[in-house]
Amino acid sequence: VQTTLGELAARFSLQLHGDPATVVVGMCSLQPGEPGKLAFLADAKYETGLAGTHAAAVVLRPELVARCPVYSLSSANPHLAFSRIAALWDARSAVEPGIHPTAVILEGARIASDVSIGPGCVVGRNVVIGAGSRLAANVTLVEGVCIGARVRIEPGAVIGGRGFGLVRDGERWVEVPQLGSVRVGDDVEIGANTTIDRGAIEDTVIEEGVKIDSHVHIAHNCRIGAHTVIAGCVGISGSVTIGRRCILAGGVGVADHVSIADDVVVSGMSMVTRNIDEPGMYSAGWGAQPASEWRRQVAALRRLPEWMKKGGKK
Amino acid sequence: VQTTLGELAARFSLQLHGDPATVVVGMCSLQPGEPGKLAFLADAKYETGLAGTHAAAVVLRPELVARCPVYSLSSANPHLAFSRIAALWDARSAVEPGIHPTAVILEGARIASDVSIGPGCVVGRNVVIGAGSRLAANVTLVEGVCIGARVRIEPGAVIGGRGFGLVRDGERWVEVPQLGSVRVGDDVEIGANTTIDRGAIEDTVIEEGVKIDSHVHIAHNCRIGAHTVIAGCVGISGSVTIGRRCILAGGVGVADHVSIADDVVVSGMSMVTRNIDEPGMYSAGWGAQPASEWRRQVAALRRLPEWMKKGGKK
Amino acid sequence: VQTTLGELAARFSLQLHGDPATVVVGMCSLQPGEPGKLAFLADAKYETGLAGTHAAAVVLRPELVARCPVYSLSSANPHLAFSRIAALWDARSAVEPGIHPTAVILEGARIASDVSIGPGCVVGRNVVIGAGSRLAANVTLVEGVCIGARVRIEPGAVIGGRGFGLVRDGERWVEVPQLGSVRVGDDVEIGANTTIDRGAIEDTVIEEGVKIDSHVHIAHNCRIGAHTVIAGCVGISGSVTIGRRCILAGGVGVADHVSIADDVVVSGMSMVTRNIDEPGMYSAGWGAQPASEWRRQVAALRRLPEWMKKGGKK
Repeated sequence: VQTTLGELAARFSLQLHGDPATVVVGMCSLQPGEPGKLAFLADAKYETGLAGTHAAAVVLRPELVARCPVYSLSSANPHLAFSRIAALWDARSAVEPGIHPTAVILEGARIASDVSIGPGCVVGRNVVIGAGSRLAANVTLVEGVCIGARVRIEPGAVIGGRGFGLVRDGERWVEVPQLGSVRVGDDVEIGANTTIDRGAIEDTVIEEGVKIDSHVHIAHNCRIGAHTVIAGCVGISGSVTIGRRCILAGGVGVADHVSIADDVVVSGMSMVTRNIDEPGMYSAGWGAQPASEWRRQVAALRRLPEWMKKGGKK
Repeated sequence: VQTTLGELAARFSLQLHGDPATVVVGMCSLQPGEPGKLAFLADAKYETGLAGTHAAAVVLRPELVARCPVYSLSSANPHLAFSRIAALWDARSAVEPGIHPTAVILEGARIASDVSIGPGCVVGRNVVIGAGSRLAANVTLVEGVCIGARVRIEPGAVIGGRGFGLVRDGERWVEVPQLGSVRVGDDVEIGANTTIDRGAIEDTVIEEGVKIDSHVHIAHNCRIGAHTVIAGCVGISGSVTIGRRCILAGGVGVADHVSIADDVVVSGMSMVTRNIDEPGMYSAGWGAQPASEWRRQVAALRRLPEWMKKGGKK
Repeated sequence: VQTTLGELAARFSLQLHGDPATVVVGMCSLQPGEPGKLAFLADAKYETGLAGTHAAAVVLRPELVARCPVYSLSSANPHLAFSRIAALWDARSAVEPGIHPTAVILEGARIASDVSIGPGCVVGRNVVIGAGSRLAANVTLVEGVCIGARVRIEPGAVIGGRGFGLVRDGERWVEVPQLGSVRVGDDVEIGANTTIDRGAIEDTVIEEGVKIDSHVHIAHNCRIGAHTVIAGCVGISGSVTIGRRCILAGGVGVADHVSIADDVVVSGMSMVTRNIDEPGMYSAGWGAQPASEWRRQVAALRRLPEWMKKGGKK
């Protein structure tokens, strides 16, 4: 695909600073940047990369236009503008609807006509898949799972595996039947090798617009509120309720039966063990330090309770 | 499936408080509960839900019968009773034995006659699978793996991948051949996308009755004792020995060569770095707090070793 | 396969202490050890196992020969020697090249002639796979991924899933097209169910000789330096750069845009939140303790900022 800065400015309502006839053939990083390609600068944090870029032009905020050494397209939300422009060069966005011959569709499945289902996928009995949804390769949807419209599921994801319900019977554990399923709303994204377990009695529910990264696990009976973002390697225990527009950073864990309000951000590798009732940012992660310093801190904490008891004396 | 409270009481040896002719058509949550359906109350913690339930009846402990506003079926272990009743409505429990035509069974595999193997499964050379075991979709059993009877393996699980054995040769790493396999005992459950690696010399061993959740990783040469429960996102390093009836909560990590005694509970997201010789509960996880408070604590700990050295003065 | 100590000494340039005609039929653990089989002792830490071994012979360092109760083969690097010997008994090392009939190879893929591709693998459009590489079962390589020579990919791994690029548009999140791909160098190992996401603009890059365990997630735009080792359950956020010959232990997390120098070791379950510019070992993990002791430490830290402020008094 080939276009010009003038065409891009017109099509995406951007303000052009430069020659509208300049040809653009793709996207590039700001640093080093490539002639003939378009870069972007969304975050002022990375502004140092602007000075020496070799990009043909940069998509950026209006206030940075003056400091841009090459042509620019300015926008109040350069990341969003860039995202829309990039779709021009996204070959994979043109996935054609259809079911690959190696996919297995079991009886009773109801699949909208423009769904794309990749090689090796397994769509269990009585599964429902809404319009425009795409299953990449080797995705498994277990019996009775219900997927909304425009849902994207990356390779290896498993939706509807057995919830991990167990009950003791003497020394042994007995598996509790998991009668619920999983309901996934519209416009949800589910990353590679992510797992979402079916509910014990009611369904596990992922509301519309939720975006889930790779390698996430969501246990049975959870409800994840609309437009919440869950980064990689997060683990959510059973019967957790998460509000709308939350962000769980990478590696976060949430204990079972916890309830989290709307608009909560949990920073990386933190464990949430109690309900969070107020919006805001919550943390419990430690940043790595040189091992010798860290060991001294660990040892100091271990002595701290006694130290405090004695009023701070040795 | 439709039954009555009287039939349930007789069949599962429960004491009925109510009209035996009451029809029951399924299970429901205690809150809000649904007419015509059966709820349960296993944990006194959730007793507040009992008062307003709309369930037809509740399975609960004898001492709660008096406080139940609807009919009840009482049992010393209501969770176990509920689990057995729920099987009546578990369509998936009636999985028929057989090998799906898209499953790949390589040479030398010995599979008991009533095993169920789902679409897209790969059963490697010389694998053995015992009676009544079920592999859901897209499960991979690598060469030589031995699976006991009545084992349930959820979608995407990989049993017998290469152990991560490496040895340095100058700057490079050389892969150490992994000559062992994986042996899985009877009545084991293995969750979706869980991985259990093959041993370096001897086998990795999962003893009978072990229950493993989704997204767990068990490295080479481990031995997991009978009836131990491993929750989601746990990672167990190589050559770890875990005793019988242990519980590892979600996100726990265990360092290599560690040995853990019987009846040990490790709480969520804790790392076990040393042998644990005594039963009991062990922890090392931090609960998330408002980020500003957390930052102050992190900063305080960083100063603590010097502070203690100076005898608690600034 | 059957050999003798004399043949092994000659073939692998080891010094034999014992009868060269001794027949060896396989490998065994040092403890208890098996007659007719070969054990090894790489780490002085495990020397206590040497005394009572029943192995036919032990591969060990020259300084331990005198303390070995059975025959021995000595080497400056016994682990490496053992690894080479073990290949004699590694049936799986003799994987024959070829593409299993159930593997799906999409248009434009270029696959070297001696590659092995297992059952259920999906090789996306325009994927390139170099000589001698092996894909085990149910591996997914998404469109455009480029794999070097002698790369080993374990079952269930997904290379080239969508990078988790999102941008806000009011309350909603819009998916940012991921135009890059993944480039994997020669002699890389990728473990079971590991995921490596494609880059947003440039490629995600795994340099030669990197060894990645099972259940690892590497997000978009990362660059992992040559001969770095990444243990199980590690999660690496987007746009991270890791140097050469690093070691990330199990469960480590790295925050986005962090840069880590060459020869850095990060210990288990630590989170790296800032750039690391110097080689050495870095830590932030807590070892599990009896829960009652741990709770006292958590409570003490919570009080610590105020305590310090007041000069160490109650």
